[in-house]
Amino acid sequence: MPNPPPGIAARDFANAIRRFEEIVGREWVFSSDEDVALYRDAYSPLWGEQAERVASAAVAPISVDEVQAIVKVANDLQLPLYPISTGRNLTYGGSAPAYSGSVVLDLKRMNRILDVSERDKTCLVEPGVSYFDLYRHLRTNKLRLWIDTADPGWGGLMGNALDRGGGYTGPDYRDHFDAHCGMEIVLASGEVVRTGMGANPKSKTWQLFKYGMGPWVDGIFSQSNYGIVTKMGFWLMEEPEAALQVSVSVPKRGDLVPLLDTLTSLMYSHVISSQAQVGSPIMNGSPDAELVRLRVKGADASDAEWASYAAGRNQPFWVAPFCFYGPPKMIAAAWEHTKDTLSSIPGVTFAENASLKFPLSDEEVEAVGAKARFGIPSLNLFGSRNSPADRPSEGHLDFSPICAPRGEELLGISDLTAKVYADMNLTPPFVTGFMFHPRAMTVFQAIPTYRNADDNRRSRQLFERLVATCADQGWTEYRVHPHFQRLAMQEGDHPQISKEAG
Amino acid sequence: MPNPPPGIAARDFANAIRRFEEIVGREWVFSSDEDVALYRDAYSPLWGEQAERVASAAVAPISVDEVQAIVKVANDLQLPLYPISTGRNLTYGGSAPAYSGSVVLDLKRMNRILDVSERDKTCLVEPGVSYFDLYRHLRTNKLRLWIDTADPGWGGLMGNALDRGGGYTGPDYRDHFDAHCGMEIVLASGEVVRTGMGANPKSKTWQLFKYGMGPWVDGIFSQSNYGIVTKMGFWLMEEPEAALQVSVSVPKRGDLVPLLDTLTSLMYSHVISSQAQVGSPIMNGSPDAELVRLRVKGADASDAEWASYAAGRNQPFWVAPFCFYGPPKMIAAAWEHTKDTLSSIPGVTFAENASLKFPLSDEEVEAVGAKARFGIPSLNLFGSRNSPADRPSEGHLDFSPICAPRGEELLGISDLTAKVYADMNLTPPFVTGFMFHPRAMTVFQAIPTYRNADDNRRSRQLFERLVATCADQGWTEYRVHPHFQRLAMQEGDHPQISKEAG
Repeated sequence: MPNPPPGIAARDFANAIRRFEEIVGREWVFSSDEDVALYRDAYSPLWGEQAERVASAAVAPISVDEVQAIVKVANDLQLPLYPISTGRNLTYGGSAPAYSGSVVLDLKRMNRILDVSERDKTCLVEPGVSYFDLYRHLRTNKLRLWIDTADPGWGGLMGNALDRGGGYTGPDYRDHFDAHCGMEIVLASGEVVRTGMGANPKSKTWQLFKYGMGPWVDGIFSQSNYGIVTKMGFWLMEEPEAALQVSVSVPKRGDLVPLLDTLTSLMYSHVISSQAQVGSPIMNGSPDAELVRLRVKGADASDAEWASYAAGRNQPFWVAPFCFYGPPKMIAAAWEHTKDTLSSIPGVTFAENASLKFPLSDEEVEAVGAKARFGIPSLNLFGSRNSPADRPSEGHLDFSPICAPRGEELLGISDLTAKVYADMNLTPPFVTGFMFHPRAMTVFQAIPTYRNADDNRRSRQLFERLVATCADQGWTEYRVHPHFQRLAMQEGDHPQISKEAG
Repeated sequence: MPNPPPGIAARDFANAIRRFEEIVGREWVFSSDEDVALYRDAYSPLWGEQAERVASAAVAPISVDEVQAIVKVANDLQLPLYPISTGRNLTYGGSAPAYSGSVVLDLKRMNRILDVSERDKTCLVEPGVSYFDLYRHLRTNKLRLWIDTADPGWGGLMGNALDRGGGYTGPDYRDHFDAHCGMEIVLASGEVVRTGMGANPKSKTWQLFKYGMGPWVDGIFSQSNYGIVTKMGFWLMEEPEAALQVSVSVPKRGDLVPLLDTLTSLMYSHVISSQAQVGSPIMNGSPDAELVRLRVKGADASDAEWASYAAGRNQPFWVAPFCFYGPPKMIAAAWEHTKDTLSSIPGVTFAENASLKFPLSDEEVEAVGAKARFGIPSLNLFGSRNSPADRPSEGHLDFSPICAPRGEELLGISDLTAKVYADMNLTPPFVTGFMFHPRAMTVFQAIPTYRNADDNRRSRQLFERLVATCADQGWTEYRVHPHFQRLAMQEGDHPQISKEAG
């Protein structure tokens, strides 16, 4: 049997395990070394080191009643619990607890889709429902609703929303926490609370009106351990009649500024329907010495230097893919307006990448690229981001600062982090800005992790330097791996008490 | 000098007043009977009765430092504080405290517009900034941004958002709490907290990314007294190139069902840009005996009965006004699609009520109707709702239950409340459904209040019966006057603890 949680006597721990077995049945309590090892953080930057955060045991209830009973045991014995839903949050800690020695409360058996309303365009799900599960339900029942899926799609709606992840479709759906409506929570006391309109058992608006009356408490249960969320409602997007996937390319490094100003304006005005992300075929190309030199030089490199580098590559400097959803006539008007507006950038080019009518046949679902932009979960992107060809990693962390969606800001993060990488003799990372959240840009940089301590130590140093260097310029993260949470909070990215009483 | 707060010795109260005067200056502490009377709830349903909630004094700081110092005094002497911003929340308690005897912390002198970014389309304001103030600022500086104003426009952005009020323009703005981004709060301890990205003083995303990292706490400061919010950021709408205001009418009572199903689908899909509200020229006509009879009969009245009543009136049964915002070509495509979609309802008619290009001249601003739909604050609607012609009231309360935006639900509330009114020999109220919030419908009924206890007693009885009767069918309120908060909470409209630990 693994070690008990810190400060818990072996006899109490054994007693807890026995009581858990009475509650959920022996087969759903995991306390052997082999079983508990399955809850390790597969991408841990501390793999095999003393400081790796590991579970002491895991217990997998199937109902709210069982969750309440488990919480009662934990209260009686002062045992730390760490709830997970599908446990697929790789790069941010996976299924391992934030507090080492916790008992993982594995909720993935609670995977019922409790309600889907095509008329209201809502659903109510349990923690274990994955994007794949809900997608299958919608397809099977021919419901004309889309989900906004994370990449990859084996994650769950609840876990991703509670960690405030994002997706790719319409503006009302891709900020996953914002798209939720109504929660059921088991508190540390064992009591059950339903938020918003859920307080009235006869309410028909639990999934329609977020607030109810009085303080709105839902936010405190996101990125926190203040309760165990056991049900959550979400708004779903009505499947559009059609979609047009396009991309816009601009030739020069500095074009990023007008490009992003225009794209955000069109997104906020609901002309562009999906998220618009921007990436650079030039800056993200295979990094020869000259590119590394220029990237580290950043804003100090002249336009001419960049233009000269770009000249031989026959690639646009920036490409932004995005979609229009709706009836074909509105799509045509929106695309025309978008082209008109962007044509003020010299050398801009436009491409139509896919034109779809819905619903898709099974064959079309299989064939379509950029699946997440059409509400289709997949594993296509999984593992495609983190491995430099010369030195495969065994996993990765995401360093993901938030910036204003302005060209200067994205270039600023790119320049600053390139210097940090170069200082450590590492290759500067890809530069792609995602607009998961309505008005903010997230810049992901994958930091490789390994199964040996020396390499991991260097990755941790890199991560720590990136957090501190960026925070000093006002760029802080939207989430981080548990190992770096304390650091990120010290750098100011939390509800900080900034002034004492006068 | 008025009575001290309950349980506070006169000497301590006098001491507090003196210390407040040292902090803000004598002229900004109000403790004479005449001055304190100005903070009474002008529409109180308990006017002049023992139970009327009244202030003991008021103090008006001009800075966060002064707020902190006042909170320190209140802590020292255990004095209850009740913060107001512009104090114009008539119908829901106005500037009078929820806890009688509180010292009103009047924040309307803190009325600085701290930042407006045309590029980011955001603002940061203090509590006393009214819709008029911000509108004037935008006009004066020729900024192409809209505000989403409450009706009437003398209220303030912060107070209305914290009470979770709503407006009329685009879907990202008219849920006023949802449109906020970032808060500064003075806690009961006197400490200052900045939420979201505001924790990092160098952050450029305080008004762009809501969450920061860790638990998102903003919601607990809405409809609550957990802190004194001293700054708040908001997302603003980019002024569109043009707008088309239209209305759709349908002939039969039962047409409300397909009408609302279609309008909500078009709103959720961003085809319709503004809120779509529905009202009934027939049901809301001057109430003759036959109309009252039919309204009380409700769903038990046959289609033929309603049709027969409607026949002589030469009016559509339901009218829904709404707007399209955007470039003219997109507006044309959206309006065409809307008409196509709604044409499945027999007898539907369409009207174009206004076509505008922006920016408006001063003369056009003056001339335009439905100002709130174009980001223009006014007092046009003020006081126009609550007075039956035969018996003017001196004020009114709003009974405002939330329902699903479905025809059956709006008719259900209409039928049920009509019976309550009839039971009390009162005329059934207007039926209008507003979509301030993205997926929910708010049904306002103005309950008259007076300056005499007998009439007010009857209004309170009516209000109480409406709350209980509707709650029993699952319809609960989005906010209520302080006098009825306890009742509304008992009826289940709050984060209710619904189950004990097993």
